[in-house]
Amino acid sequence: MTIKEQFYTYIAGLQDTICQALEAVDGRSRFIEDKWERQEGGGGISRVIANGKVFEKGGVNTSAVHGQLPASMRETLGVNGSEFYACGLSLVIHPVNPYAPTVHANWRYFELYDAQGNKADSWFGGGSDLTPYYIFEEDGVHFHTTLKNAMDPFGKEYYPAYKKQCDNYFINKHRNNEARGIGGVFYDYLRPADEQEARRLVDFQQANGNAFLPAYLPIVEKRKDEPYGEEQVRWQEIRRGRYTEFNLIHDRGTLFGLKTNGRTESILMSLPPRARWEYNHSPAPGSPEALLTEYLKPREWIKE
Amino acid sequence: MTIKEQFYTYIAGLQDTICQALEAVDGRSRFIEDKWERQEGGGGISRVIANGKVFEKGGVNTSAVHGQLPASMRETLGVNGSEFYACGLSLVIHPVNPYAPTVHANWRYFELYDAQGNKADSWFGGGSDLTPYYIFEEDGVHFHTTLKNAMDPFGKEYYPAYKKQCDNYFINKHRNNEARGIGGVFYDYLRPADEQEARRLVDFQQANGNAFLPAYLPIVEKRKDEPYGEEQVRWQEIRRGRYTEFNLIHDRGTLFGLKTNGRTESILMSLPPRARWEYNHSPAPGSPEALLTEYLKPREWIKE
Repeated sequence: MTIKEQFYTYIAGLQDTICQALEAVDGRSRFIEDKWERQEGGGGISRVIANGKVFEKGGVNTSAVHGQLPASMRETLGVNGSEFYACGLSLVIHPVNPYAPTVHANWRYFELYDAQGNKADSWFGGGSDLTPYYIFEEDGVHFHTTLKNAMDPFGKEYYPAYKKQCDNYFINKHRNNEARGIGGVFYDYLRPADEQEARRLVDFQQANGNAFLPAYLPIVEKRKDEPYGEEQVRWQEIRRGRYTEFNLIHDRGTLFGLKTNGRTESILMSLPPRARWEYNHSPAPGSPEALLTEYLKPREWIKE
Repeated sequence: MTIKEQFYTYIAGLQDTICQALEAVDGRSRFIEDKWERQEGGGGISRVIANGKVFEKGGVNTSAVHGQLPASMRETLGVNGSEFYACGLSLVIHPVNPYAPTVHANWRYFELYDAQGNKADSWFGGGSDLTPYYIFEEDGVHFHTTLKNAMDPFGKEYYPAYKKQCDNYFINKHRNNEARGIGGVFYDYLRPADEQEARRLVDFQQANGNAFLPAYLPIVEKRKDEPYGEEQVRWQEIRRGRYTEFNLIHDRGTLFGLKTNGRTESILMSLPPRARWEYNHSPAPGSPEALLTEYLKPREWIKE
């Protein structure tokens, strides 16, 4: 199998595994599948869940597209190749219960070809990050520790470096640099020097992809039946407004997708089911809502 | 009075007039005022209404700022001046009742100075546009006709030209070029050649600004007590999702403000109180909701 076949086979299986596990936790709603084709080459499989007992809205999408590299993308990436191949899995899950956090993850692979059709460049990217509405320190520690444990066998330097990249990326600059959530890991442009390194990077992707369910599901299981009221839903909606702001104003993937004629409904499946904007809203000092905002700054989740 | 004094005096008075008229229609909520200062020079007066009987959320803001022109703005505008002055009134009103439309309007004035502090360039801009959730043809005709009648005394060519600019601007390109609403008028870079023309452009701004209440209020009065249910609110929220998308992805003013360290809460007062995103939502064929989407393409509202 080529590298791209190996990685695509992995994410296709991971999509099944994740969807089944989420359905099992939900117990009511099932994922609905939409297959779509890209006129210029390739396509995707979007799977969306809605109005579940546990999950209010979520999407677990895979895609594998190829063709001529748009000029805008050539500029953004600073590369010269004329043909490309890109595949990946992207997911965003918004639970019903405001005490259960939203999660986002993505693992992707990119190949560029020269005029003769030979592979000229290739790289892997990925990450997972958590967006809670209320802070439970143990949940943050569990999420970060699970991601770290998946990376550590590949080198102890990866988790701290990619945790930092995540902290630096998911920031609402226009909101006084408030973070979208409590982070996780984020990496990009991991370029294998040769075939052997490429296989090792596929292993790395698999280790991270496989860590998603153990990182997230125990948190949802723990919080999904927590009693809550209107006040918690209102706060969840306000925070989901911030999530919307990040995705539409700052997220490179979202904007790139929308501006290069991607499939809008698949790209915007990341948006929350509901969001709320109240002028100048600020939680009461000392409240659990105010406590969250103190955690929306980079911090070390794992004490050595 | 200088041109800028004359125009600022006008918009300061218009802010009072509009807020008082909206409060009178609402009958319950009052505007809350926030004065803010800009570190680099100038400031603004934000007035926000929330949880009214008629108006769910709205803002009527004025600002007058000055100082060094940021490099990014010099590029965007393609100008060379080093100091600038800008003032304007911006409003967005989101009513409670889904049968009452959201409205947006803005009138602004800009001056640029050369190194000696002499006025090197100046222009006016403005516009009003309507975003209904359900279509009442007579409301669209009334809105457009009122705006046209305000402009016609200055030249019959203005309404058709500025109506078209409005149609071209408020478009969600990433949604198959769906319009945000049913338009209105939009104009920019009206550069007076001399003092006399500048005074005439202030008159033009006043005519348009004065047309706002007669264009919008009768529509709200007519629709505010229309009975509605959950289904209409859900549709209103879905359409407000599209409004959010336009403002955060495409609106030049919003993005410019956020990226040049403007006052975030004043800029984002335009966002709806609540928005909703449902995957691949599409209204039932033949429903009133489906009818709206047929109107989200440029059309002639005024038959001669």
